[in-house]
Amino acid sequence: MYMAKVIGSVVSTQKDKSLVGRKLMIVQPIDAEGKSTRSQEVAADTVGAGVGEFVLLVHGAGARKANVGERTQRDVVDCAIVGIIDTFDS
Amino acid sequence: MYMAKVIGSVVSTQKDKSLVGRKLMIVQPIDAEGKSTRSQEVAADTVGAGVGEFVLLVHGAGARKANVGERTQRDVVDCAIVGIIDTFDS
Amino acid sequence: MYMAKVIGSVVSTQKDKSLVGRKLMIVQPIDAEGKSTRSQEVAADTVGAGVGEFVLLVHGAGARKANVGERTQRDVVDCAIVGIIDTFDS
Amino acid sequence: MYMAKVIGSVVSTQKDKSLVGRKLMIVQPIDAEGKSTRSQEVAADTVGAGVGEFVLLVHGAGARKANVGERTQRDVVDCAIVGIIDTFDS
Amino acid sequence: MYMAKVIGSVVSTQKDKSLVGRKLMIVQPIDAEGKSTRSQEVAADTVGAGVGEFVLLVHGAGARKANVGERTQRDVVDCAIVGIIDTFDS
Repeated sequence: MYMAKVIGSVVSTQKDKSLVGRKLMIVQPIDAEGKSTRSQEVAADTVGAGVGEFVLLVHGAGARKANVGERTQRDVVDCAIVGIIDTFDS
Repeated sequence: MYMAKVIGSVVSTQKDKSLVGRKLMIVQPIDAEGKSTRSQEVAADTVGAGVGEFVLLVHGAGARKANVGERTQRDVVDCAIVGIIDTFDS
Repeated sequence: MYMAKVIGSVVSTQKDKSLVGRKLMIVQPIDAEGKSTRSQEVAADTVGAGVGEFVLLVHGAGARKANVGERTQRDVVDCAIVGIIDTFDS
Repeated sequence: MYMAKVIGSVVSTQKDKSLVGRKLMIVQPIDAEGKSTRSQEVAADTVGAGVGEFVLLVHGAGARKANVGERTQRDVVDCAIVGIIDTFDS
Repeated sequence: MYMAKVIGSVVSTQKDKSLVGRKLMIVQPIDAEGKSTRSQEVAADTVGAGVGEFVLLVHGAGARKANVGERTQRDVVDCAIVGIIDTFDS
């Protein structure tokens, strides 16, 4: 799992039907000091995260298991926000 | 998921049969400001994306689930275009 | 599997239910000389690791198979601590 | 999928039985201008690619689905050549 | 698959039970000229590789399929040595 900061969102009309109704957030992976680490990604939000919040990202099958909406066998998502970070203790 | 710009396509005659009839686009992953981030890849298009457009990429099993063509158990694709980005709000 | 040092933990109240009750540790991947290699991550602890200890990390489905708690079909974890390293022989 | 150039092969006698009889090619991932991008890898050839040719690589389960030989449940391959690139249009 | 050199091993007493009895080797991924490429990893040996030998690494589900020991549904391994390289022809 990666720590990340939510920095925005993307709007896409022409997309796979399993992405319809999903909040697609632009996220910047960071370390515990808030420094940027990996390249920006787009993550499907599953916990109500907003811009500026620090979050936990998962990838691959874990991201599809986080899909709390109508469970679709054909969910293409491969990155999801699964937690809002309250504190970093390091 | 990664944001990317479609910069071209590849033609391959001698290939796995699950790639026959698929549009194989060269994509350059970018950040929300359009700056290049990761190395170029080839993605199977599933939403009618054209050169110059900004798109959403998924990898792994998610890319195979996006295969809207004849669902083949033996689909080798591991990267797919699953959305055309209208706007970046960041 | 990656070698890593446990450097802290994160607290998250608003999160996927499969993360409830899990110890979410901040880990810094290292090489055999203790030098930092990849970016920091958050790993679910499954062996009682503490801050300052050297550990073994697994990713993807392997991380979900390490979930010794109540086996949930919907486990979103994609990184887990699966061993505490006693010695590096290199 | 990644574009790559085939630059050689490896010979391995002591290996997993699912690798027996497979052509193991050394590949250098490149971009559309032929510039090296990621680190070299070894890929199982499935389309008759030769040294010097430009090819398409897939990873993970997609690489195992490309195994046109005797389908073994226990195929350890995680990278395969699934196409020979005729032209790059970018 | 990656080429790598075996440079040592780790000892871990407190670990996931699927790692018990497995040889956990420290490996340095290399290119065909022996130059280091990616960060060091720990791989479960399945072919009797020793320190100083050049080997083939697989990741993810492929690494679990290489587990020649008692096939455990709960194998957490995500990186395995599946071949000893005799020669690099490049």
